[in-house]
Amino acid sequence: MLRGLTGAGLGKLESNEQFIELAAKYGFQAIDIDALGLVESHGVDGARELLGKHSLVIGSIGLPVEWRHSEEAFLDGLPKLTQAAAAAAALGCKNCCTYVLPSTDYKAAHFMALATRRLRTCAQILGAYGIRLGLEFVGPHHLRTQWKHPFIWTLEETLDWIDAIGESNVGLLFDAYHWYTNGLTVADIEKLRADQIVHVHINDAPDVPLEDVRDNGRIYPGEGVIDLAGFLQGLQRIGYKGAVAQEILTAAPPTDSPESLVQRSKAGFDKVYAEAGIG
Amino acid sequence: MLRGLTGAGLGKLESNEQFIELAAKYGFQAIDIDALGLVESHGVDGARELLGKHSLVIGSIGLPVEWRHSEEAFLDGLPKLTQAAAAAAALGCKNCCTYVLPSTDYKAAHFMALATRRLRTCAQILGAYGIRLGLEFVGPHHLRTQWKHPFIWTLEETLDWIDAIGESNVGLLFDAYHWYTNGLTVADIEKLRADQIVHVHINDAPDVPLEDVRDNGRIYPGEGVIDLAGFLQGLQRIGYKGAVAQEILTAAPPTDSPESLVQRSKAGFDKVYAEAGIG
Amino acid sequence: MLRGLTGAGLGKLESNEQFIELAAKYGFQAIDIDALGLVESHGVDGARELLGKHSLVIGSIGLPVEWRHSEEAFLDGLPKLTQAAAAAAALGCKNCCTYVLPSTDYKAAHFMALATRRLRTCAQILGAYGIRLGLEFVGPHHLRTQWKHPFIWTLEETLDWIDAIGESNVGLLFDAYHWYTNGLTVADIEKLRADQIVHVHINDAPDVPLEDVRDNGRIYPGEGVIDLAGFLQGLQRIGYKGAVAQEILTAAPPTDSPESLVQRSKAGFDKVYAEAGIG
Amino acid sequence: MLRGLTGAGLGKLESNEQFIELAAKYGFQAIDIDALGLVESHGVDGARELLGKHSLVIGSIGLPVEWRHSEEAFLDGLPKLTQAAAAAAALGCKNCCTYVLPSTDYKAAHFMALATRRLRTCAQILGAYGIRLGLEFVGPHHLRTQWKHPFIWTLEETLDWIDAIGESNVGLLFDAYHWYTNGLTVADIEKLRADQIVHVHINDAPDVPLEDVRDNGRIYPGEGVIDLAGFLQGLQRIGYKGAVAQEILTAAPPTDSPESLVQRSKAGFDKVYAEAGIG
Repeated sequence: MLRGLTGAGLGKLESNEQFIELAAKYGFQAIDIDALGLVESHGVDGARELLGKHSLVIGSIGLPVEWRHSEEAFLDGLPKLTQAAAAAAALGCKNCCTYVLPSTDYKAAHFMALATRRLRTCAQILGAYGIRLGLEFVGPHHLRTQWKHPFIWTLEETLDWIDAIGESNVGLLFDAYHWYTNGLTVADIEKLRADQIVHVHINDAPDVPLEDVRDNGRIYPGEGVIDLAGFLQGLQRIGYKGAVAQEILTAAPPTDSPESLVQRSKAGFDKVYAEAGIG
Repeated sequence: MLRGLTGAGLGKLESNEQFIELAAKYGFQAIDIDALGLVESHGVDGARELLGKHSLVIGSIGLPVEWRHSEEAFLDGLPKLTQAAAAAAALGCKNCCTYVLPSTDYKAAHFMALATRRLRTCAQILGAYGIRLGLEFVGPHHLRTQWKHPFIWTLEETLDWIDAIGESNVGLLFDAYHWYTNGLTVADIEKLRADQIVHVHINDAPDVPLEDVRDNGRIYPGEGVIDLAGFLQGLQRIGYKGAVAQEILTAAPPTDSPESLVQRSKAGFDKVYAEAGIG
Repeated sequence: MLRGLTGAGLGKLESNEQFIELAAKYGFQAIDIDALGLVESHGVDGARELLGKHSLVIGSIGLPVEWRHSEEAFLDGLPKLTQAAAAAAALGCKNCCTYVLPSTDYKAAHFMALATRRLRTCAQILGAYGIRLGLEFVGPHHLRTQWKHPFIWTLEETLDWIDAIGESNVGLLFDAYHWYTNGLTVADIEKLRADQIVHVHINDAPDVPLEDVRDNGRIYPGEGVIDLAGFLQGLQRIGYKGAVAQEILTAAPPTDSPESLVQRSKAGFDKVYAEAGIG
Repeated sequence: MLRGLTGAGLGKLESNEQFIELAAKYGFQAIDIDALGLVESHGVDGARELLGKHSLVIGSIGLPVEWRHSEEAFLDGLPKLTQAAAAAAALGCKNCCTYVLPSTDYKAAHFMALATRRLRTCAQILGAYGIRLGLEFVGPHHLRTQWKHPFIWTLEETLDWIDAIGESNVGLLFDAYHWYTNGLTVADIEKLRADQIVHVHINDAPDVPLEDVRDNGRIYPGEGVIDLAGFLQGLQRIGYKGAVAQEILTAAPPTDSPESLVQRSKAGFDKVYAEAGIG
């Protein structure tokens, strides 16, 4: 399982280049980055070279389509999606992810029908380029009532939704924070097949009651109470081999320098990987 | 548009034969009947002959699959579905319908995901036999709060769901009662394409406030307040050529003889077809 | 059925504007034109206005994706397809068409598998924008052996392929020339449903043996031997209401002025529509 | 990887019970057997108990649908398929397989379209029960010209076909004999993902030129020239964990007793598993 970083939790990164250099310097193997932006700034060959010389792969791109609101906004995103998919594929990235909010202002059943059709279209376009779509269920309790109607937030619901979407390239973005806030166990991970998991996020939670854990109250791996060793061991046991990307969402951005934050991230990974007995 | 009957509203029919004979005697051209039952009792050739000599076609069969509850019950219905589809196809029937309750005790979004997948499977099996699946949205207001969570009940939601199911052989069962209780107009019908409509139900409503119309308070066509002439004209204008089947759901079954009820039904059809200017 | 024109057979058109003006001047109601080009040159509003003031609709756009050769070329076309689909939808055009050559240098079964997947992807993208994909089977006999292996060319094969593609928005581009060169009859048209037909091409054939008819030997409607009255009547009988677009493919481009060619086209339409008894 | 047996190569088995007992006695862990037949003769509980007490799982059932000829025959098989799938699922079997002949008397492209649609329907039905469909490409050269037109026989073509079918539960039945006769290498196996492989067959080939290897000239593992150690190592390296079932197709059935043939099979497995360094 590759050590991965997203930009979230690294403070004010000056550039993609800085992100790439710091990730490589501190032993990370994967980054979640905007592949299309990288291709636009460096060209395909330049972007490949930049990643290659730092021995980095792209863990996942984000889904550049607004599927949660109007049909117009959704359709507006599709040309961009084809370009982003082409860029990701050109850089060897096979994953694209989006998150699923656990409540909605729309009527829940109707929104589920719309979202099913829209994400299917996204998956079909991504699939043409050999890219998978990962859906991230979101566990923090406060978000379940943030909008008018409950939507979905559990692992089981998300797996059922993936079946409803019905494309072979759709799977889970499995995030330790949402695993934790859903009250899931290592045994729940072990019931999955590795090929159901598109991408993994890792981060830790403070020692507060489960129902009070805030989505933007995340802390660095190894600094909190989530059983990340068990989380990683479960993933390894089922044969997951992809990236495990840190994503620290916080209410206010950290003010330390990016380098010190990447260093701190490395320390977290060192700790939890060691606890998990993973090389 | 073929004049059609379902058994609902005809009192205590003694047998399929009686149903068929009465329908033919009073000028109906289509009946909604259990094709598999007919094939089991008469054989394919016998059933064809029985229908043929009465110049009747089967308007639609009902979906013999319980898709609204447990996965086990759902799967149990699939062998039966293949048999029912084979029987319907053998008798020249190309339609199969099911209704959609407007509320549910399950979490609405999750149930929508499950139901999408299950109805897709049903549509796929039916499609192998050249049969379409019609979804009937259900309008009466009291049913929207009958179970814990609102599901879907509007035409627009149902069309969006059909898109989410994503099979080319899924369309609407368009029922005059649900059109009326949704407050829809003839213009709403005219926005549809004929190929979006799998089957049509006709029946009338008593003169009570719209929100008080009960699902099982239906009356015979022409005896109530629904603009059935407009309904039929709208359907004709968009080129719908299938069956229009009467379905009178009532709290208590009518006690008149089936023959007098079929006669009454004929009078209703005569009236509303004449008002609509349809031959 | 709308009288329609493609650029093929109109000689050296100077501009889209000339095409539009001539089409309108001679009573045509639909043109097959590059919607994206029109939007790029005039903006969405300008293009709408240009078409609107000439009372013209766009019959169909061409599929801007090379699905017949390398995977790379195929993928390169997808961003363009999203843009073309968005432009077509913005201009109210709901159809996109491509033709199917009756032989191929690739192994036929393998190419069928690849083409099925590629055209499905195209249909899925078009479907997101509410646009249908029409497949044109190609009848002239000489093309059946033009490349190494026979592919498909009959109506039945094409319908079976549409089922294999399996998207609800795929249908036929039905061309009188290919209907004729396949030896089909009016009865074959009457077996179709209108919703299976995405778009129609019309043109005529010289009086030569059927097997000698050349794909690029087409002549103007009414000047040859095809039973175009029967063709149009069949389409009308099944309820086809879309455009019937002339497409005169010739070995050498006609040298007459576009205006005289559009005039000649009008005379042809006048003749065959009159023979068919269509207003 | 589970040691598995099919009935092919075991001579005249007297009953399912004998098959099961011999398989267990000689250390096999999986058998390919008719799950529906077993359920019909023993009931679900009885069949589970029979398999359970012999520590056997069912590797795969065969697809009980004739998808290679008439539409009528195809449809006739669907009710049986639902029953077979239900039986397999009840016994914990998640795989169903069919083979693909490398030539056909039908026009190749048209047959590919028909077969794509039919196998998709089969996959959809199987998928409802959580069962995967494995397609076995068939390599022996003589079969490529056995019927009029070449169809498909390579790994690459089969993977492309799986994409054309477009259901997430379709993968490969990977047979050592077809791997060998296609001239494939261990590196070709290593390019696959384990989740692309539904089931594996193992058997050996005599020392004759590759193009002379006959489909029904198979011999026991370890008695021929195929690099079965490499084959098994490749599968293990990509993480395949399912059954590896022996299937010895011969021109005439072996005349030795089933017990001696199972014993011989065990010796073959012992040898090639040992050579592969698999426990």
